[in-house]
Amino acid sequence: MPPYAADPGALRPRDPEHAPEPAPERDRTKAVGEAPDPRSAAFDWTGDAAARRAEAGLVRTLRPRAAESPLLDLASNDYLGLTRRPQVTEAAADAARRWGAGATGSRLVTGSTRLHARLERELAEFCGFEAALVFSSGYAANLAALTALSDRDGLIVSDTANHASIVDGCRLARAETAVVPHTDPAAVAKTLAAHPGRRALVVSDSVFSVDGDRAPLGALAAACRDHGAGLVVDDAHGLGVLGDGGRGALHAAGLAGAPDVVATLTLSKSLGSQGGAVLGPARVIEHLVNTARTFIFDTGLAPAAAGAALASLRLIAAEPGLAARARMVAATLHRRLTEAGLSAARPDAAVVSVRAPGPAEALRWAADCREQGLFVGCFRPPSVPDGISRLRLTARADLTDGQIGQAVTTILRLAPAGAR
Amino acid sequence: MPPYAADPGALRPRDPEHAPEPAPERDRTKAVGEAPDPRSAAFDWTGDAAARRAEAGLVRTLRPRAAESPLLDLASNDYLGLTRRPQVTEAAADAARRWGAGATGSRLVTGSTRLHARLERELAEFCGFEAALVFSSGYAANLAALTALSDRDGLIVSDTANHASIVDGCRLARAETAVVPHTDPAAVAKTLAAHPGRRALVVSDSVFSVDGDRAPLGALAAACRDHGAGLVVDDAHGLGVLGDGGRGALHAAGLAGAPDVVATLTLSKSLGSQGGAVLGPARVIEHLVNTARTFIFDTGLAPAAAGAALASLRLIAAEPGLAARARMVAATLHRRLTEAGLSAARPDAAVVSVRAPGPAEALRWAADCREQGLFVGCFRPPSVPDGISRLRLTARADLTDGQIGQAVTTILRLAPAGAR
Repeated sequence: MPPYAADPGALRPRDPEHAPEPAPERDRTKAVGEAPDPRSAAFDWTGDAAARRAEAGLVRTLRPRAAESPLLDLASNDYLGLTRRPQVTEAAADAARRWGAGATGSRLVTGSTRLHARLERELAEFCGFEAALVFSSGYAANLAALTALSDRDGLIVSDTANHASIVDGCRLARAETAVVPHTDPAAVAKTLAAHPGRRALVVSDSVFSVDGDRAPLGALAAACRDHGAGLVVDDAHGLGVLGDGGRGALHAAGLAGAPDVVATLTLSKSLGSQGGAVLGPARVIEHLVNTARTFIFDTGLAPAAAGAALASLRLIAAEPGLAARARMVAATLHRRLTEAGLSAARPDAAVVSVRAPGPAEALRWAADCREQGLFVGCFRPPSVPDGISRLRLTARADLTDGQIGQAVTTILRLAPAGAR
Repeated sequence: MPPYAADPGALRPRDPEHAPEPAPERDRTKAVGEAPDPRSAAFDWTGDAAARRAEAGLVRTLRPRAAESPLLDLASNDYLGLTRRPQVTEAAADAARRWGAGATGSRLVTGSTRLHARLERELAEFCGFEAALVFSSGYAANLAALTALSDRDGLIVSDTANHASIVDGCRLARAETAVVPHTDPAAVAKTLAAHPGRRALVVSDSVFSVDGDRAPLGALAAACRDHGAGLVVDDAHGLGVLGDGGRGALHAAGLAGAPDVVATLTLSKSLGSQGGAVLGPARVIEHLVNTARTFIFDTGLAPAAAGAALASLRLIAAEPGLAARARMVAATLHRRLTEAGLSAARPDAAVVSVRAPGPAEALRWAADCREQGLFVGCFRPPSVPDGISRLRLTARADLTDGQIGQAVTTILRLAPAGAR
């Protein structure tokens, strides 16, 4: 059993067809032959699946943390360190007291408050889009954008490393999904060209979570425009980190507000809260209000989450240096670790991916760091399709120089043989 | 354009095959022939879809409300009136201050706090299940349960009136889905019998949102047991309202904690917060932790939402009369409206469905109520497959006798000709 789980939010789909995880083989004879009580037989197969996970050393366990963790956190997605900022937590508290602990219904009935409307207006404005719509999670936002903007007759062109929620959105849309090689705009263009006259979407993460590398947004947008396709970009890891003052990867690429571009976001990373959003032309947002099932059939985002996200957004606008600081911390981590001989991809945003010699070594390395007070992410096959195990570090804007030094020292000191 | 939207969380799937909404026909000639800028052409079709909605009078619009609404609310799902209770809103505020405004990552990395663990423990205990797992929404909980417990080779037997999130869960699981007539356990048994040896799930809402009627849980469980199938029940509208002190429909049916039964819940209705949960045998919950994509790849529920839900749960446990009061308010509304000649289904939980003579009359009736300070839900075709338009009233436990009287008087006074 691994000492702690990898960052699963970052796992790449295991195969290029966006296929679901293979189903464990079933041992029906056991369920049928040995269980005298038909009630307990129904889920007997989960025991077999658990045994196979244990044998493969792939058991995931929850490790609830205390309110005040002694660990130095380089594993969360709180890129700007805002989730604990008093202005943000007080905004959450005030919103709960003023608007209630829940939204009480669908956004279309009782669940829309003026707080939601304000958040949507300011989010759209900050990121440079015409309109925005807020969801209870980034997962729901991706499902909404993809299902509302494509369908059975549509074509979706999706990067092989896209997030699970994009993969699920493609599945739910029931569109023909063409999975293309990672960050390969030529493959995207070729796929679009092969389907002339088809309503098409191209979808990509802006920053990929495992390696922290960026999508070639300009080239993707050009391919879309050549073929009349819409571009949907999940800027979960870009908002607050990339672009002028953290306005995101699409703003940085000059694509914010374009009539053929839609952004999906999370409120749970740089904004330190919970929820997701879709940003785009007003008519696209109106289309989602009318047709997106994860918007229509879900309770609205809790006021506390909306209030916290709005407070974070205003802090980012008021402190335009936060984004640059997060990028700088990432660059510093990368520089100091590689200068000392480790192998790491140059970070495009706030994620630093450090190569480990193998899965067992990566696991041990991360566990040793944790014992020494440093919490880092760890990836190993089958989560990484290229077979390369790595540590995943997130660079928070609020890490002090002393904490950066402590993290670098710990990682270097505990580096396994072969890491250098 | 309707003056306000229907309760879409309650819409039944429009056809018995759980098919997606039909795609609007596309007018490609327009996009190709008139748009000189290929950028704007990508989403031109949404304009056509909007025009068709407007023509059909089916435009949904958001109406953000103020913090203090002057309307008497019989439209939300805040069945116990807890979302504004000071103990609940203060618990949300405290949790945000103590644990941060967000969970900061996946539940498997940094997103599990001891607050989440406590909520899961107490939720399972209260409802009589072995274990629980909390999600960012009830929608995510249904997607998780269905995708983790079925797959391409599986069979899911689903009531035709099940909630959209169940329908989407069936689609995402890629199982063969047999949609059976509404509340028809004989049809369920027949379907299971027709697929011997197949791993099967039966899934149903416990209380259906449009009419507030109950599923025949005992008969469904018997059918499952006869055929070794698992039973998944969405108790979104039962928790807090049905069962001993609000322990839910499965507790009431003697099925809580059974080895072949799984419950899904929302934290956003009776618990007045945000989020969802799956309850079941410990091995099923462990299976979800390891395989459910909407758990693994989503940020954990915000601490404020977890804290508020926990506070509500404790209030419900401390005030066992709340559930009975909600049911009593529903029974009173039903009695007084039907005694005055209106036609309404006898409420099984806290939802009262009142028949209107037609869609235009229903719309006008609800709009008139709103003008007179009463907020009620309104359903009309195509949201209701039986073609019967109705008002949907939710009976909150904290409605005073005076408010009940006011609601009844308003509804009766504004009733259209033909409603009686």
